[in-house]
Amino acid sequence: MSTASGRQRVARAVLTYLAEPGDPVLTGLLTACQPADIVAAVEAGHPPAVPTGWWATVRADGRPRGSDRRHAARLEHSFGAWRSRLGRVPPEPDLAGFHRDGVRLVCPGEPEWPTQLDVLGVARPYALWLRGEADLRYCCLRSVSVVGARAATAYGAHVGTNMAAALAERGWAVVSGGAYGIDGCAHRGALAADGVTIAVLACGVDVAYPRGHRDLLAGMAAQGVLVSEWPPGRTPTRRRFLIRNRVIGALSRGTVVVEAGVRSGALNTARHARDLGRPLMAVPGPVTSEVSAGCHKIMREWGAVCVTGAADVIEMLSPLGERASGQPGALPGGGARDGGARGSPWAGAAAGGDPLLARDALDALSADVLRAVPARGAGPATIAAAAGLGVDAVVRSLGLLAAGGYVERCSRGWRVRPAAR
Amino acid sequence: MSTASGRQRVARAVLTYLAEPGDPVLTGLLTACQPADIVAAVEAGHPPAVPTGWWATVRADGRPRGSDRRHAARLEHSFGAWRSRLGRVPPEPDLAGFHRDGVRLVCPGEPEWPTQLDVLGVARPYALWLRGEADLRYCCLRSVSVVGARAATAYGAHVGTNMAAALAERGWAVVSGGAYGIDGCAHRGALAADGVTIAVLACGVDVAYPRGHRDLLAGMAAQGVLVSEWPPGRTPTRRRFLIRNRVIGALSRGTVVVEAGVRSGALNTARHARDLGRPLMAVPGPVTSEVSAGCHKIMREWGAVCVTGAADVIEMLSPLGERASGQPGALPGGGARDGGARGSPWAGAAAGGDPLLARDALDALSADVLRAVPARGAGPATIAAAAGLGVDAVVRSLGLLAAGGYVERCSRGWRVRPAAR
Repeated sequence: MSTASGRQRVARAVLTYLAEPGDPVLTGLLTACQPADIVAAVEAGHPPAVPTGWWATVRADGRPRGSDRRHAARLEHSFGAWRSRLGRVPPEPDLAGFHRDGVRLVCPGEPEWPTQLDVLGVARPYALWLRGEADLRYCCLRSVSVVGARAATAYGAHVGTNMAAALAERGWAVVSGGAYGIDGCAHRGALAADGVTIAVLACGVDVAYPRGHRDLLAGMAAQGVLVSEWPPGRTPTRRRFLIRNRVIGALSRGTVVVEAGVRSGALNTARHARDLGRPLMAVPGPVTSEVSAGCHKIMREWGAVCVTGAADVIEMLSPLGERASGQPGALPGGGARDGGARGSPWAGAAAGGDPLLARDALDALSADVLRAVPARGAGPATIAAAAGLGVDAVVRSLGLLAAGGYVERCSRGWRVRPAAR
Repeated sequence: MSTASGRQRVARAVLTYLAEPGDPVLTGLLTACQPADIVAAVEAGHPPAVPTGWWATVRADGRPRGSDRRHAARLEHSFGAWRSRLGRVPPEPDLAGFHRDGVRLVCPGEPEWPTQLDVLGVARPYALWLRGEADLRYCCLRSVSVVGARAATAYGAHVGTNMAAALAERGWAVVSGGAYGIDGCAHRGALAADGVTIAVLACGVDVAYPRGHRDLLAGMAAQGVLVSEWPPGRTPTRRRFLIRNRVIGALSRGTVVVEAGVRSGALNTARHARDLGRPLMAVPGPVTSEVSAGCHKIMREWGAVCVTGAADVIEMLSPLGERASGQPGALPGGGARDGGARGSPWAGAAAGGDPLLARDALDALSADVLRAVPARGAGPATIAAAAGLGVDAVVRSLGLLAAGGYVERCSRGWRVRPAAR
């Protein structure tokens, strides 16, 4: 990493301390200035000069309106607020120290950055704080968000857990919000199936929230990855949950609502997924159950697709499913990968870089492991011996390759997926 | 009734004894010949001459293909089969005798004929046998089919009964198939709410099938109407149930499937409704329930709308609902009636005559009763006194006027619906 990009990286880390994610003034400034220049301006105590008309870019919808004088006052106000938080930023060596504690920072443009977040435009996170063994970008290539009410019923818990486990068994990473109820069931189901699961949190990745999920969060860090836009130590607020939801919607290929009342926060996530053009799905339930009412509402009013299990979800999200539903452009054979991006909800992300990494974009270790996986399948030890690598590294790599759609589980262990041969 | 139309009427009654409904040869012949001429030809023992190319009209899809010689042989075969059944037709005075037993015949073009059946084209019933107090054409103006599995669960029975009761309370007639399970719940729910219900049977309207529904069928005859394409005395067969289903789909403005397995006959009815362009709805249920699997399947694959209660159903079927979903043409006020037909699934029926009877098409009794209903509402006795009619006649008439959308229940009894003023 060059010193210049290192500077911008530290600046992005600092910005996560200064402003809330999605702050319209900061997101606007980031379209015009380098992060390090913004931090330097905050430290110097005076906002950078912005060109006339720049305020129109601050929000995608053209807001805020008002006079230039009012805008200047607003910029001053934001800078004042950010400056007042400078004292909360740990010194630079401490930022490196987080890394020793298993916490890492990922910035736009870096290898682990999930490019599909770029569909959020100016509302894209400044950076992401991560904790956990899994590679975020790989995992998200074949990921689905499974969300729902905190006040889940036994029915919802049963369906959510089984669906997540079945998705994980078929190589899909399960994204959710780490909350009680359906979120927890989704994470637990994926973990129980030895799958990868991603928790997008509204607090620092080192914060055990909710308390009762301390062990679950630790389990996810060991087998998946915890993600947050907020720096370590931050606690969640109601507003942060809502801001966070757009990342759950954007990170995965599609979103499933398992159970949700008509006023559930899960519908906020669903709305983001819908607005981003990502496939939105809902699990039906008894019409007599209040926590299924939100699912039925989005089926009827938002066009959410009725899904009854993992097979329905995978059909909705696979390129084959897209072709079956009348999407042109997805060609049999080699065209499948393009077909997944072109004309698909994933296309917005593709504009910022193909989210389905090409085989030659694999890192050296993954490429070595993939070459060692026989078509008929083999166990990790056999693959490790063939690749001349340690079993632990191979096991981790296989999980990433599965998330990327290259390999799948079989009775012998792991094999190359037919589509990836 | 003129002697000529009386002859055709008797001939249609005879045809229901000779051929199964939907018989492609007879439906084809009826496009070219008068019913009485066909019966005369059967009695004479030789088929009428048909013009070249006529066979192409026998089935809407252009089938059957084949040589003229093969067609002539097929016509001969059909005539032979029909002739062999002449002995089953009761003598003409007996046909009149059915009427004394409360059974009546309704033929296309007659006042009680539900014109929306004409959307079935050549597959339109030859005639309908009816038993019951309600006027079939009036009832169907605001009717919805509520169908589902015989093997209903307690959940399905609960939802089906409540939905039918709520629909009936709001002046909608409930159409179903008279079977055990969801059908029976739909009929019972409508009856319990003092509503009108219509059973479309696959056997004679005088046959108590299924046995356990003897009392229910009697109750429906007293408060609604039993409908069949088969003459009195006929027993049902599996094939007859399937043929009958197209009438359930065509008779009502829309169809709701409450519970159905993926191989349920209710999905056959649903397919007819969909193919006729009528709104198709399904009630969601637990994904763990096999008898909800068909409902979820048609939501996902056929575009059935997820409905959770009577309010959702009425919204789907009312002209206002059509306007809200982007249908042009439905104007506020006086345009609502046209709007309901134009560009709507009901439009096919409108081609054969407006199914929503104009006020000046009301019979004299109904018109007198309607004039006597005050805008603020009144009980039947008050209305009867104002109209100078008996209470029994007024009560029956009010039910028909409600089915036609002219009056509705209110706390005082009955009032004129705002839209009908």
